[in-house]
Amino acid sequence: MVTIPPDIRPHDGRFVSGKHYFACRVYFEDTDFSGIVYHANYLRYMERARSDMLRQLDMDQNAAYENGEGVYAVVDLTMKYLSPAKLDDDLVVISTVETLRAASVIIDQTIMRGSDQITSASVHAAFLTPAGRPRRQPKSWTKSFASVMEQADMK
Amino acid sequence: MVTIPPDIRPHDGRFVSGKHYFACRVYFEDTDFSGIVYHANYLRYMERARSDMLRQLDMDQNAAYENGEGVYAVVDLTMKYLSPAKLDDDLVVISTVETLRAASVIIDQTIMRGSDQITSASVHAAFLTPAGRPRRQPKSWTKSFASVMEQADMK
Amino acid sequence: MVTIPPDIRPHDGRFVSGKHYFACRVYFEDTDFSGIVYHANYLRYMERARSDMLRQLDMDQNAAYENGEGVYAVVDLTMKYLSPAKLDDDLVVISTVETLRAASVIIDQTIMRGSDQITSASVHAAFLTPAGRPRRQPKSWTKSFASVMEQADMK
Amino acid sequence: MVTIPPDIRPHDGRFVSGKHYFACRVYFEDTDFSGIVYHANYLRYMERARSDMLRQLDMDQNAAYENGEGVYAVVDLTMKYLSPAKLDDDLVVISTVETLRAASVIIDQTIMRGSDQITSASVHAAFLTPAGRPRRQPKSWTKSFASVMEQADMK
Repeated sequence: MVTIPPDIRPHDGRFVSGKHYFACRVYFEDTDFSGIVYHANYLRYMERARSDMLRQLDMDQNAAYENGEGVYAVVDLTMKYLSPAKLDDDLVVISTVETLRAASVIIDQTIMRGSDQITSASVHAAFLTPAGRPRRQPKSWTKSFASVMEQADMK
Repeated sequence: MVTIPPDIRPHDGRFVSGKHYFACRVYFEDTDFSGIVYHANYLRYMERARSDMLRQLDMDQNAAYENGEGVYAVVDLTMKYLSPAKLDDDLVVISTVETLRAASVIIDQTIMRGSDQITSASVHAAFLTPAGRPRRQPKSWTKSFASVMEQADMK
Repeated sequence: MVTIPPDIRPHDGRFVSGKHYFACRVYFEDTDFSGIVYHANYLRYMERARSDMLRQLDMDQNAAYENGEGVYAVVDLTMKYLSPAKLDDDLVVISTVETLRAASVIIDQTIMRGSDQITSASVHAAFLTPAGRPRRQPKSWTKSFASVMEQADMK
Repeated sequence: MVTIPPDIRPHDGRFVSGKHYFACRVYFEDTDFSGIVYHANYLRYMERARSDMLRQLDMDQNAAYENGEGVYAVVDLTMKYLSPAKLDDDLVVISTVETLRAASVIIDQTIMRGSDQITSASVHAAFLTPAGRPRRQPKSWTKSFASVMEQADMK
C-alpha cells in the first residue's frame, strides 16, 4: 500500500492584487546544448502559468473542452528574451490580464529569476469551438477575468 | 519594483524513510492528440524527480559538470505503462535507490495518481567524465545514496 | 501566391527486406546542457520512425483514431543507451517487427550514426479502443505486419 | 553488419531565389490533447528551418560554438497563429532574411500546409559570445546573408 505524504503535491500559483504568480524550476529537459533554456520552452512555462491562472479562477478548461464548449488557442504573441535562464534556476511567471474582449483575452507575462527579468511576453488567446471558430467566453469566465483586472487597477 | 510573494517557489520533493516523493501536474505540453500524456514525457517527470532527489541530498549536478568532475547519463532503462495520465492530473513520482555501484546507480521509479499506478521504471544511470567515460561517483554522493538505502531497509 | 518547390517535402522512410529505415537530424531542441541528446528524446525519434513505418504500410493511425477504431499505445519498453548523439548528427532509426500478437506488436528499434550504434530499444505497443481497452488490431494491419516479418525472415 | 540505404538521410531544405524552403511532418509528439499542434512547437519547426538555412550557407553553428566564437540566440519574436496544423500534416517553413545588422539578423518565417498559411513569425536573433555578449557575426556569414537578400530582391 502506497502512502503519499500529504504535503507532496504540485505547486499552485496564486493571485495577489490582480497579479498571478507561478513558480517553476529549470530541469535538464528545458536546456539546450548552449547551456541555457531553449527559447521555445519559455512558452511552456508561460502556458503552465496561464493554465494555473484559470485553475485558480475555477475555470475548468478540461471540462469545457470535453463538453464541447470550447478551448483557448493562442492567436498571436510577442516575446522578448532579456536574460537567459540556466539549469536549476528558480523562476516565477507573473501574469496580468491586459485586455478582455468577448471572445478573447490578452495576458501579459513576465518571467523573473529573483529581481532579474528573463523574458516578457504578450499572449493573445481566443476562445474557440471544437471546430475552431471564435466563440464568446463563458460568462462566468469573463466575469472572473474582469474582477482580476479591477483588483489590479485598484492597487 | 517587482515583489514576489515568498511562498511562490517551485515544488521541492523530499525523502521519507529512504523513499523520495516528488509531485508534478500534467499540462497541455505533456499530452498528445489521443488525449493522454505522450509516452516519452513520463521520462521527463522521472528525470525531474531524480534531479530533485540529488538536490535534496546536496549533490550539485550543475557544479560537478561545470568543474569538470562529471555528469550522470542514463545507460539503460525499462519502463511499464500501466494506466494513462490526463490533462490536469496531479502525479507523484516515488523513487528508491535500488542498486549502488562504484560508477553507477539504479533508481526504481513509480508514478502514481492517488492510489493508481501510472507507470513504473527502473533507470540505470552512470557517472561519466565530460569526455563520456565511466568514473567513480564522488565519495560524498555514494555515501548519501548508501544512507538513503539504509533508511529504506530499516523500514 | 506561394509556390513550393515539389522536392521540398518531409523525409519518408522505407522498408528494405523487412527492415524499416528512417532518418532524422539532431537539432537544438533535442540536446540538453550537457551537449548531447536528452535521453527521453530518442523515444521521439523512435516514435516518428514507427509512425512512418505504419504510413509506409498504409495504416492510417489518424483515421483509425478519428473513426473510433483505436490507437496504439506503448505498454512497456526497454532501452539501452550505447553512445551519445550530438547537435547536427544525421541518425537513422532501423525498425523490425519482432513479435506480432492479436492485440499488440513488439518493434525492435536501433538508432545508428553511420556504423555507430547510438541506442537500441524494444517497444511493445498495444492497440486500444478510445476508452483504453485492448482490441484486436485491424485485420489488414496484422496482415501487413506479418508480411513484413516474412520478408525479414527470408533474408 | 548494418547497411543503410544511401537514400535514407534527413531532409535538407534549400534556397530558391533567396527564399529558404524546409519541410517537416507533424508527429504525435507535436500535438496536444486538443488535437492540434501545441503552440510552442511551431517555434521548434522554425528553429529547425533556421538551422538548416545556416547549414545550406555553410555556416557551422556547432563549430562556432565549440571554438568559442559565438552562438545565435533569439532576442525577440512576434508570431501569428492563422490556422492549426494536425497530426500527419506535411508542412513547409519558408524563411527570408528580412534585416541584416552587424551583430544580429531578422528572419521572417511562414509555415504553410499546401497553400494554407499556418503561422507566420518574425524572429530576431543576435550573435552572442559564449559569455552572452553581442558580437559581430563572422564576416563570411554576413556576406552569405547579404547575398541571399540580394537574390530575393532581384526576383
